[in-house]
Amino acid sequence: MSPKYVYFFGNGAADGKAEMKHLLGGKGANLAEMTNLGIPVPPGFTITTEVCDAYYKNNKQYPKGLSEEIEQNLSRLEKLMGAKLGDPNNPLLVSVRSGAAASMPGMMDSVLNLGLTPDAVNVLIKKTGNERFVWDAYRRFITMFGDVVMGVERHCFEEVLDKYKKKARVKSDTELTTDQLKKIVEEFKAIYKKETRENFPNDPKIQLQKAINAVFASWNNPRAVKYRQLYEIKGLLGTAVNVQSMVFGNMGNHSATGVCFTRNPSTGENKFYGEFLINAQGEDVVAGIRTPEPIADLEKEMPDVYKLLVKYKNTLEKHFRDVQDIEFTIQENRLFMLQTRNGKRTTQAAVKIAVDMVKERLIDKKTAISRINPNELDQLLHPTFDPKAKKEIIAVGLPASPGAATGKVVFNAEDAEKLAAKKEKVILVRKETSPEDIGGMHVSKGVLTTRGGMTSHAAVVARGMGKCCVAGCGALIVDYKTQTFKVGGKVVKKGDYISIDGSTGEVMLGQVSTIEPRLSGDFAVLMEWADEIRKLKVRTNADTPADAKKARELGAEGIGLCRTEHMFFGEHRIDSVRQMILSAPDVKNLKAKIAGIEKELAKATNNKTLAIKKELAQAKKELTEPLRLYISALKKLLPIQRRDFEQIFTTMDGLPVTIRLLDPPLHEFLPQEEYNQKEMAKQMKISLKEVQDKVSALHELNPMLGHRGCRLGVTYPEIYDMQVQAIIEAACNVKKKGVTVCTEIMLPIISTEQEFSILKDSVHRIAKEVMQKKGVQIEYMVGTMIELPRAALIADKIAKHAEFFSFGTNDLTQMTFGFSRDDVGSFVPEYIEKGILEKDPFQILDQEGVGQLVEIGIKRGRSTRPELKVGICGEHGGNPQTIAFCHKIGMNYVSCSPFRVPIARLAAAQASLQQPVSQATV
Amino acid sequence: MSPKYVYFFGNGAADGKAEMKHLLGGKGANLAEMTNLGIPVPPGFTITTEVCDAYYKNNKQYPKGLSEEIEQNLSRLEKLMGAKLGDPNNPLLVSVRSGAAASMPGMMDSVLNLGLTPDAVNVLIKKTGNERFVWDAYRRFITMFGDVVMGVERHCFEEVLDKYKKKARVKSDTELTTDQLKKIVEEFKAIYKKETRENFPNDPKIQLQKAINAVFASWNNPRAVKYRQLYEIKGLLGTAVNVQSMVFGNMGNHSATGVCFTRNPSTGENKFYGEFLINAQGEDVVAGIRTPEPIADLEKEMPDVYKLLVKYKNTLEKHFRDVQDIEFTIQENRLFMLQTRNGKRTTQAAVKIAVDMVKERLIDKKTAISRINPNELDQLLHPTFDPKAKKEIIAVGLPASPGAATGKVVFNAEDAEKLAAKKEKVILVRKETSPEDIGGMHVSKGVLTTRGGMTSHAAVVARGMGKCCVAGCGALIVDYKTQTFKVGGKVVKKGDYISIDGSTGEVMLGQVSTIEPRLSGDFAVLMEWADEIRKLKVRTNADTPADAKKARELGAEGIGLCRTEHMFFGEHRIDSVRQMILSAPDVKNLKAKIAGIEKELAKATNNKTLAIKKELAQAKKELTEPLRLYISALKKLLPIQRRDFEQIFTTMDGLPVTIRLLDPPLHEFLPQEEYNQKEMAKQMKISLKEVQDKVSALHELNPMLGHRGCRLGVTYPEIYDMQVQAIIEAACNVKKKGVTVCTEIMLPIISTEQEFSILKDSVHRIAKEVMQKKGVQIEYMVGTMIELPRAALIADKIAKHAEFFSFGTNDLTQMTFGFSRDDVGSFVPEYIEKGILEKDPFQILDQEGVGQLVEIGIKRGRSTRPELKVGICGEHGGNPQTIAFCHKIGMNYVSCSPFRVPIARLAAAQASLQQPVSQATV
Repeated sequence: MSPKYVYFFGNGAADGKAEMKHLLGGKGANLAEMTNLGIPVPPGFTITTEVCDAYYKNNKQYPKGLSEEIEQNLSRLEKLMGAKLGDPNNPLLVSVRSGAAASMPGMMDSVLNLGLTPDAVNVLIKKTGNERFVWDAYRRFITMFGDVVMGVERHCFEEVLDKYKKKARVKSDTELTTDQLKKIVEEFKAIYKKETRENFPNDPKIQLQKAINAVFASWNNPRAVKYRQLYEIKGLLGTAVNVQSMVFGNMGNHSATGVCFTRNPSTGENKFYGEFLINAQGEDVVAGIRTPEPIADLEKEMPDVYKLLVKYKNTLEKHFRDVQDIEFTIQENRLFMLQTRNGKRTTQAAVKIAVDMVKERLIDKKTAISRINPNELDQLLHPTFDPKAKKEIIAVGLPASPGAATGKVVFNAEDAEKLAAKKEKVILVRKETSPEDIGGMHVSKGVLTTRGGMTSHAAVVARGMGKCCVAGCGALIVDYKTQTFKVGGKVVKKGDYISIDGSTGEVMLGQVSTIEPRLSGDFAVLMEWADEIRKLKVRTNADTPADAKKARELGAEGIGLCRTEHMFFGEHRIDSVRQMILSAPDVKNLKAKIAGIEKELAKATNNKTLAIKKELAQAKKELTEPLRLYISALKKLLPIQRRDFEQIFTTMDGLPVTIRLLDPPLHEFLPQEEYNQKEMAKQMKISLKEVQDKVSALHELNPMLGHRGCRLGVTYPEIYDMQVQAIIEAACNVKKKGVTVCTEIMLPIISTEQEFSILKDSVHRIAKEVMQKKGVQIEYMVGTMIELPRAALIADKIAKHAEFFSFGTNDLTQMTFGFSRDDVGSFVPEYIEKGILEKDPFQILDQEGVGQLVEIGIKRGRSTRPELKVGICGEHGGNPQTIAFCHKIGMNYVSCSPFRVPIARLAAAQASLQQPVSQATV
Repeated sequence: MSPKYVYFFGNGAADGKAEMKHLLGGKGANLAEMTNLGIPVPPGFTITTEVCDAYYKNNKQYPKGLSEEIEQNLSRLEKLMGAKLGDPNNPLLVSVRSGAAASMPGMMDSVLNLGLTPDAVNVLIKKTGNERFVWDAYRRFITMFGDVVMGVERHCFEEVLDKYKKKARVKSDTELTTDQLKKIVEEFKAIYKKETRENFPNDPKIQLQKAINAVFASWNNPRAVKYRQLYEIKGLLGTAVNVQSMVFGNMGNHSATGVCFTRNPSTGENKFYGEFLINAQGEDVVAGIRTPEPIADLEKEMPDVYKLLVKYKNTLEKHFRDVQDIEFTIQENRLFMLQTRNGKRTTQAAVKIAVDMVKERLIDKKTAISRINPNELDQLLHPTFDPKAKKEIIAVGLPASPGAATGKVVFNAEDAEKLAAKKEKVILVRKETSPEDIGGMHVSKGVLTTRGGMTSHAAVVARGMGKCCVAGCGALIVDYKTQTFKVGGKVVKKGDYISIDGSTGEVMLGQVSTIEPRLSGDFAVLMEWADEIRKLKVRTNADTPADAKKARELGAEGIGLCRTEHMFFGEHRIDSVRQMILSAPDVKNLKAKIAGIEKELAKATNNKTLAIKKELAQAKKELTEPLRLYISALKKLLPIQRRDFEQIFTTMDGLPVTIRLLDPPLHEFLPQEEYNQKEMAKQMKISLKEVQDKVSALHELNPMLGHRGCRLGVTYPEIYDMQVQAIIEAACNVKKKGVTVCTEIMLPIISTEQEFSILKDSVHRIAKEVMQKKGVQIEYMVGTMIELPRAALIADKIAKHAEFFSFGTNDLTQMTFGFSRDDVGSFVPEYIEKGILEKDPFQILDQEGVGQLVEIGIKRGRSTRPELKVGICGEHGGNPQTIAFCHKIGMNYVSCSPFRVPIARLAAAQASLQQPVSQATV
């Protein structure tokens, strides 16, 4: 027997239920659930997502038996409604809507008023006595059918509508007369014929069949595919098709349509929120073509209906235990619920709602934690406009999605993408947005529209993206042709800077300065709950005391990566660094020479010693100047590094601080410009040519694979010695002042066991000397980064000496893939497009390949040192998917940039919920 | 009970035997063996290598009980000899010699004539009636004791000796009178006192103790350590010490000493070979101070002794089944054998001897195979001087070690090492060489000495190294001070080129041209035996028909790596390549643009189409020129590549040919010089600036990790398509002419499964098209290089699509270590010196790290495709140690440069002998 393809709902009972989202889509499942809850829903039936799947798998053929099932359910619907599709005397009108398991607002196409024919129009006019409504419904139907089913561009129809409105000197569609609508219908049909080369179909069965086809076809249209890509929606069978009897919000002034949220989706406030339009169909609200009234006004206009609506929305929120985004229609004072779904919300709202619902005992803490997308916390962590900043406010629109955005004005999605690709900040300014603009919105800092309300396309999508949005800012006159907008006599051109405030709706000229966000209240509560649940520690990558402070405020439990080389670039430091680097190779070579001569001297007999002694004296003399420069440069750097470390230790009092010794190839620090080279020559009292020779001698073909990291520590031991001295001295100094220091000295780019053991011995030697001198004992560990495949493969050997591992997944990704992070721009985007790579492996850890090495490294490391502390300090440490992986494979901590610390805390908690027992604790 | 530390030998019986080399050292074990064989050996005892090991492990303290054991054995020796160490009436004299398990000729120190004191001198004079002999022995003892035991430099003594010879106007030491020798002894004692600040010891027990100490100490002296490093001698406990009663070759004209080989160690000829000196001690022969007589002359001088010597040498060769290197002494017509060991020989000799001994049924083929060091075969594969070349012969010395060498003259080891480090070819010219020169000899192309014979230090060591050597070229007057040598009125300065022929002894001015070696006779026989035994196939890396031909001659069974990019550099090809590369990115971008516009056009309605069509036409017009250039460049390259492939296929008729598609980053082909850039601009009809912009746009920071290999195939599909077309067309064309083609198309730098599957589909598509057009079916495979860690880790997935794997261990080493082959020069030498790396991992595969990935790759690859063909094509493919590893882990073949093919054949056979069953066949 073939599976059931069609599920009926209506008359208080439904074949489906909420749990069947995968099969019925979100809309279909919830229509069934609402029906079962006794909430008035226009009856209808849902064709399952399995049909969509079978359709695409079977070369766009429907499964056998489907049409019979549709026929049966249509009959049942007709019986229930007492009307028949295409019945000249009693025609049934239906809507045909898409609905996949994941919400994809505005992405999929729907057709309303299906079943209208010239005959049906006449009957309906007789039945309703409302001629204008019927003609209005007819012109809408032609538009939607032409657009969605036949691919006639919507603007072809709209131009006609505008022409008539202009002619009639009216602003709103509702002001058009019946006669005008009749003429419009004629023109629409002509457009339809011209564009499709066929007549508009008068057989409702054909209309229905074509509409169902169109919905299934829309599943794979480019914007739907793009949307799924952007939001990483995967594993769906396809869309379901909901065929539902029509109710009309445009039957006159006792009819209305609206969209509402059980709580404020922008702020999270527990207050009924929404909008409605009298005498309109649903699309008018969502499309933002007319600006609707706030939901509260409905109480005044239709108090009984409003009461019912409040009752239903309360039922629904309690039933679903989450904020509901509800569509409703009032047909001549009768309320119908057309849709309910979990409401999209801003992150700020998500946090507030989650915390509130725990307090209201609607959900538990774990549910609250799992409801927040960690990546979106980013929004709360970013700046808002400085209230003290001078603002030239040129307009105020609706505060549709909070945030502060500054950028260059662009007027279409394509320009937005182009400029963003050049790392420009852009603000996308549109009359209204449509699903085609998704890509452009995604790359913009903010979105500004002149039409549409709080639930308009722009507003809904922007909130979903966590993007700042000001909507319905009618004061702006946008001219796409000249790529400008005018407001109050001012003209803003493409490329001019503006700033928009999504929390106030303000639009400002120029770039307005911003301030840091404050993280307290609900956010802090949520973070506490996350901290209770998570097993992974969260540290930060911080190179400066300021970063360390910020990270600690954001909940960092230590520093996982303090890059000492970043300290080298400050003020007058770089000169000393350069002096050190330029003299180091000379010192090394001369020292080797002197050692050789001394060996000879030790063996030499009297008659030879004189000559050798002379040679030795000469070599020592040659060494004097480079050595003086080298030592003096190191001496200058020592107190600078020490001071940095003192500040960082003090800031992180009581928390671990992992300090990585010098890592990048030396030539990265060298003067490349002749001006700077001259300066160095002067300082070092050598010729420009000599400086240039030294710089070019240090040049490397593949610096990423060159003389860097611990390789420097081996060949120029004085540099690491200086750094260790600075660290231990700093630790001793602050300990004397009562600070608790737990420092972890980290050796980078280790590839062999011997490298580590030799350098570790040096660290201990210097540390011992310093502690003896200072008379202070401090706790410290010596460990390594695992960032080369070889290090992961021989981790068991390295762990014999190393007290901790920190996976440097940036380098590990580079080596494992053979990708240079600096050079992959020429092919990685194409790789992602072609599906060769799912993701940029520098953003999300490649678990398939690089992840294997991380697992191998941990397993082998712990095989020789079971208590080995393991963390990650690549950019990946702040990525929630990667954090889940780190939890799974038993790391002790992740380390990420300060602003990603809360994200990591939440992601770590979610990882614990998903996998309560990690490999580490097994 | 403590272990036995001392092993006695003498009077026809010994505690030890030949198999105890590890414990007794080679010399001690063979002295025992000879004693047991009834061959006359002066009795003595051996202190084991375990003592040496214990001595170093226990802070230079000897194990308990040792001195008692020495005392007991000394008593036994004294009883047997009827003389006593230090007995004023009947003093015993002994030699103290080192001897480790591995032969380290001239590396370790020995002391002869130990036991001499002023008292003993008097008694001996009385007993022998040979005053001169006794004083001569005494002066030798003081020299050796002073030098070896106390570190007094030998030249201090030699200067005195020279002074007396000059004064007496004699040339040879033997011409000095007893009185002169007496005075010399006095002066020697004074020198000893001055240098050591103590008197020369007159107590023989103290002499013995100090001498034993010195031998053990010499185990770790720098030149011994260096020697073990150079020859990769590992795993030894230390040296043994042989204390043996003295016999004297310097007791007059019926005494002699000599060194001989059972066969000619230079040519391998089965003819008794050696030298002797009348009235001399052994050191005189080895040190090359006097030029000895050929062994055949002994027959005339002492026919009975000679007969006995021949008998013993025959016994020894048969017993040991290998060429013996024998030291003997004749004391007043009585023959004593002092040492026997397997003789070092040239590679040419080794091959001949191995093959001859199989024919003589002394050894079997497997033993023959295992006796040749594959690395040394290299010597046989390298050029000899062209007999037709013009040669200015300035002198002829002894042909001490065969080969043809050309290089700049240097006069000491240090200069040799310095110049060699700069990739200069050098010839080391010395009066005589000493162990201190080992390093310098190693880096020189050849060695030329003015003193010493065929068994002098220079000759022995050079043969061991497979280095060309001309010894004893007395015509040359070397002046170290002015760094010149004079010969027949010509002066040759340091840095001048000379050429030396180790097979003829000729020394020539300037650089003499060379010719290729011919490989036949014994060599061919040996190679056949190797082929019977080995399991691994041996292929070659060859990019040209000439290389392919050479490799096939040398026994290559296919091409494992044919690099197509090397073909790009020929004659006029590079221009087309550059044109292709410079236009490729434009073509790509414009094509993407056109595709975008066409999509728009497809969707557009009438009123929009016109504008879009215009845009499209414009974009297509813009594309014309780059596309024309691109296509025309590809079209020009196609026939060139096809012709190359046709020739290679024809050369390799019947054997597999693996062709790698384009691998290096494109910018490697681009013109960097402005002159060339101008030329390109002219050809492409664009401005110089545009060419420069394109070149700089293609520049990469880390090209090794950049846009290369299959990444080019993905982004510029036309290039790979052209290459595949050329390969398949070539294969079809030659197949029509009767050539059997088995081509394997190899995709480089694969990191993901999708990369491979996409590109493989393209290869099949093009191949199908070509074969249809040509009407020919050819066999081909598509496989990949495994050269990225990720590829090894996901080999199971890649092998689902790939028909073969070739491990590109050069890149795999780079990525696994994070080492750029081009940049490691700044630290890898220091790493090897400090023991962080044992070897340069680009020369010998790092089994510990990189090897793990190779094993993982094979195991996983065969898990999804059990019949997967696996090979290696990095530089490592010609390295014997790596070949053994490849055999062990179950590869099907190795591929190496043409001249290493015989080495690989032999190494593969040896691997089969060591491990008859590889993982592959398990």
